[in-house]
Amino acid sequence: MPVYEDPAGGVRVDGEALQAWTAALVARVGTPPDIAADVAEILLASDLRGIASHGTARLPQYVKLVEAKVMDPAARPVRDAGKAALARFDARNGWGHHAARVATDDAIARARETGAAISAVRNTNHYGIAGWYAMRVAERGMIGVSLTNTSPLVAATRARVSLLGTNPIAVAARAGRFGMLVLDMATSTVPRGRIEVAARRGESLPVGWAIGPDGAPATTPKAALAGALQPLGGEEASGGYKGYGLALVVEVLTGILADAAFGPNIVGLFSTEGQSNLGQFFLAIDPSAVGSAAGFEARLERLLDQITAAPPIPNAPGPVLYPGQPEAERAADQRRRGIAVDQEHHQSLRQLAAKYGIRFPDVEPV
Amino acid sequence: MPVYEDPAGGVRVDGEALQAWTAALVARVGTPPDIAADVAEILLASDLRGIASHGTARLPQYVKLVEAKVMDPAARPVRDAGKAALARFDARNGWGHHAARVATDDAIARARETGAAISAVRNTNHYGIAGWYAMRVAERGMIGVSLTNTSPLVAATRARVSLLGTNPIAVAARAGRFGMLVLDMATSTVPRGRIEVAARRGESLPVGWAIGPDGAPATTPKAALAGALQPLGGEEASGGYKGYGLALVVEVLTGILADAAFGPNIVGLFSTEGQSNLGQFFLAIDPSAVGSAAGFEARLERLLDQITAAPPIPNAPGPVLYPGQPEAERAADQRRRGIAVDQEHHQSLRQLAAKYGIRFPDVEPV
Repeated sequence: MPVYEDPAGGVRVDGEALQAWTAALVARVGTPPDIAADVAEILLASDLRGIASHGTARLPQYVKLVEAKVMDPAARPVRDAGKAALARFDARNGWGHHAARVATDDAIARARETGAAISAVRNTNHYGIAGWYAMRVAERGMIGVSLTNTSPLVAATRARVSLLGTNPIAVAARAGRFGMLVLDMATSTVPRGRIEVAARRGESLPVGWAIGPDGAPATTPKAALAGALQPLGGEEASGGYKGYGLALVVEVLTGILADAAFGPNIVGLFSTEGQSNLGQFFLAIDPSAVGSAAGFEARLERLLDQITAAPPIPNAPGPVLYPGQPEAERAADQRRRGIAVDQEHHQSLRQLAAKYGIRFPDVEPV
Repeated sequence: MPVYEDPAGGVRVDGEALQAWTAALVARVGTPPDIAADVAEILLASDLRGIASHGTARLPQYVKLVEAKVMDPAARPVRDAGKAALARFDARNGWGHHAARVATDDAIARARETGAAISAVRNTNHYGIAGWYAMRVAERGMIGVSLTNTSPLVAATRARVSLLGTNPIAVAARAGRFGMLVLDMATSTVPRGRIEVAARRGESLPVGWAIGPDGAPATTPKAALAGALQPLGGEEASGGYKGYGLALVVEVLTGILADAAFGPNIVGLFSTEGQSNLGQFFLAIDPSAVGSAAGFEARLERLLDQITAAPPIPNAPGPVLYPGQPEAERAADQRRRGIAVDQEHHQSLRQLAAKYGIRFPDVEPV
């Protein structure tokens, strides 16, 4: 599982201060305050959990899209079709985080009545970590599912080019003394960011992470960054077609169901050439509709008890974990000690602070 | 992707004749005819699609459970809790195939009203291929999802022992000229049957398929069969924790949600020591609730067009495929030419035919 190390040469900043600064910055570029508060809360949740790639580090790119008028910071989502257990929202090209929060809350409210409910969202943008929306549902005692399509970076099995996004799957549920089970995973073997890190460190890559532009396994980060990521499972012989199938199913439930852009047609977050028009999917399932919510939670706690008490393999790097455990531990630590931010990330936020005249919070060395 | 080769030394038998024989045999052991018809239809669908491990090859074990009075062949499922979009069924320890078909049809009917609906099933048994139920939903123009927990055979990441089943995920949807997209995958790297095949052939195993009883990667089938399967992704470094997370999430949506047995507590199909009490999950999503069903299908067709037209990697073993394509091609072929059955499978059915006095259909050499 991912290990979150403090970045060398970085700074530490108080989470609440960074959240307030983020909300102020997002508001300054034309976002109504309530929408800016959603964006800031969700970005900070990512930073706190140690998923630096999906938190405030994305702010420069979001702001660039707003400045280029590719994204509308003031747009509010509208419900434009649906029935009791399946509703569609048009995010009207506004902040993905806000539209997704609204759609998630709507699914939760409908699931209270019907036992389960889905929100499909179209015409939306990057929403940060998929897990936040699943956790939002789980906090209300339900099982939460959150899916999004993303920029095409992953090759289908046997294909030489990127056709699908890293299309994440997030599922969360309350788990008694374990707090919450949170699976939040890309359907590729590794995210692109992990290859960028290998490039900075001059490392070679194992087979199964990526292919080069010629379609052969990429053994260098350079080849991988010019080629395509491989789906979870890697090569065909080691089950890569399953990861491909999962990425495709996420596409069906997001872009295809919501009538948004899909697959190779998506204009990515890092391009200002067009609107992303992403599709997203949120499902809330209320266990209390078919029994006792406490019973559900007790059973999940029991299962995690059994799993985490299992004897480990020799030379295991640590104990048997449950999904979401490292991120929850990292969040608890960073809530106390402040969030560790690497130099590049810190400098990019300072530049935004200077440009928009919003004083950046005090920092201290990591 | 799996390649289906005709078994050496096997026989070929007409699918319709084998289905009629299966229905008669299942009825003979005390199953009402309508339930027997469901069981036979679903087992034959698996045989036709070339998934020999989940079709009539399982009949001897099913019959053993009935003979041992571990499974009740006459039980009918009852709906015992729920709301409009989430209902729970108690299969009352009857045939898993029938209860799952009833629960799936109920979800389809409710999804017509609400846009989406789930059936959770408890106290049930092995239901054959997960994909059949997802395809049942897709045939009605909806997106179908089918999940089940299974006998514990898979180690959690870092754990030395089996804690979770191969817990399959099946998703299906209509896809225009491509017929149907059908993902039907175990959340382990390979099924146990693939290791049994390697054992018969004297092959060694790649890292990532299984661990031995000592927790180290199993390089021989013998070590693997005494140890545990690894989740999709294999080792921790190649993303095995994602497959572990997926298996766990399937467990949450099946055994934990339905209040059935879960994880290491499940008594497997191949034991007569107790009832399996499996949990299953069926979800139907109606795209016509948020737009046009034809539009949904056209978009999916377009995506599969783009994917299957992509340039292939060098030395690809064949064209870029979509999930369910090899199985659909195999089914079309076997519907015409009869189903290829290996010797061991053939003999086991002959023994049942003799024991219960139901003449086995004519066969010819493969």
